[in-house]
Amino acid sequence: MSDPELHTAAVIIIGNEILSGRTKDQNLDYIGQRLDKLGIALMEARIIPDDEKVIMETINSLRQSFTYVFTTGGIGPTHDDITSASVAKAFSVQLKENPEAVQSLRSYYDEGSINDARMKMALIPEGAVLIKNPVSGAPGFQLDNVFVLPGVPLILKAMFEGIENRLIGGAPILSESVTCNLREGQIAGALGKIQNNFPVVSIGSYPFFKRSRLGVNLVLRSKDESALQLAANEVRQMVQALGGKLYEAP
Amino acid sequence: MSDPELHTAAVIIIGNEILSGRTKDQNLDYIGQRLDKLGIALMEARIIPDDEKVIMETINSLRQSFTYVFTTGGIGPTHDDITSASVAKAFSVQLKENPEAVQSLRSYYDEGSINDARMKMALIPEGAVLIKNPVSGAPGFQLDNVFVLPGVPLILKAMFEGIENRLIGGAPILSESVTCNLREGQIAGALGKIQNNFPVVSIGSYPFFKRSRLGVNLVLRSKDESALQLAANEVRQMVQALGGKLYEAP
Repeated sequence: MSDPELHTAAVIIIGNEILSGRTKDQNLDYIGQRLDKLGIALMEARIIPDDEKVIMETINSLRQSFTYVFTTGGIGPTHDDITSASVAKAFSVQLKENPEAVQSLRSYYDEGSINDARMKMALIPEGAVLIKNPVSGAPGFQLDNVFVLPGVPLILKAMFEGIENRLIGGAPILSESVTCNLREGQIAGALGKIQNNFPVVSIGSYPFFKRSRLGVNLVLRSKDESALQLAANEVRQMVQALGGKLYEAP
Repeated sequence: MSDPELHTAAVIIIGNEILSGRTKDQNLDYIGQRLDKLGIALMEARIIPDDEKVIMETINSLRQSFTYVFTTGGIGPTHDDITSASVAKAFSVQLKENPEAVQSLRSYYDEGSINDARMKMALIPEGAVLIKNPVSGAPGFQLDNVFVLPGVPLILKAMFEGIENRLIGGAPILSESVTCNLREGQIAGALGKIQNNFPVVSIGSYPFFKRSRLGVNLVLRSKDESALQLAANEVRQMVQALGGKLYEAP
């Protein structure tokens, strides 16, 4: 990135089940919110299948373009868990049994329940730094700027908290919402002018149809708190000037 | 695609609000499920910001690689709705007022509520075929193999139904689920063998922790109904042979 102040990220969601519509991803919005707080801009997310070539190409493309890359999914014990092996190939390093990971798995599982499939979760690309799994023993790992995390939301959250101190961010991205009963087409002209007056604030407009209420939710985002508040006030005044009513956020 | 029988698709979800974690995407799982029924394999999804350059590059990359590309979001009347203009640029065609779109908007809005912002939704890339919007007047459009759809889930669904007859697919992708109280690490070895025996069936393994129940959901997918049923039976027998209990899907 040309601006050294701008810390960026991409998320790669790995899993056929998300693409088939069988499972809804539950991690992206969590990661997006955490990165906002850390002042890291999430620039892109890709949802890709459990396919070695696609995983390799996606990782190698995104790790060049963004400060951080987070992957979710595919690090369990079954045949369709191929993320760790694919990351090793993407970085051209060996996948090897990691002693620290072996220890973590041994302390989680009873002696009798350790088997080859479970020990597969101790196979980690050489040179990676482990990410502790406080829930179920099997670690994730960091290789260069790529963080490999599990797909199960509960475990992902526990592990993400553990890596936040490894991430260098900037000022947190603050946001304000203004929700009203007007339609986008009624406010678009005036809203565009406010956007032009506040280039450091990004204003998004999201119509909703919910429980027989109809309206628009205006979301302002900025690292500059005072510009954010000024712009939000102008938006609220605009709603009232156009004869609209302010709502609580839907 | 080298296999003419393989009909593939990608989805591009356009919107800062999804990346910031403010809004959860609600369209991908719907599109994934519809494409399954149509026998079109959804190969990738990308979530990208309201950024002209990124939209152009993403569309131009994916429309070369897949049979169909569907975009969601960014075709409303406000300043942050830049999808139509970006698609026009990606295809190097003009963005022009489309008479059919003008008519559709005029029949939806009262005479007095038509304004410049709303007429912006009649600006459509030259050469595009409109996609009717039975809910709120503003159309989407198809340009070559790219289908441009809105982000509001209710409207997206209504419009997607209207384009299904334009899509050429194959045999529907069928699926069977087997849910049990075993852990992934207990079944991984036996499951991997079943996967090897049924190369035309794709078997996914998804652990869950839900309402104090813990187990794994095994999802089998194939276009070959009899192979699918045979494989699903073997998976059920495997669960019982390992001392597990079958559940209803979680």
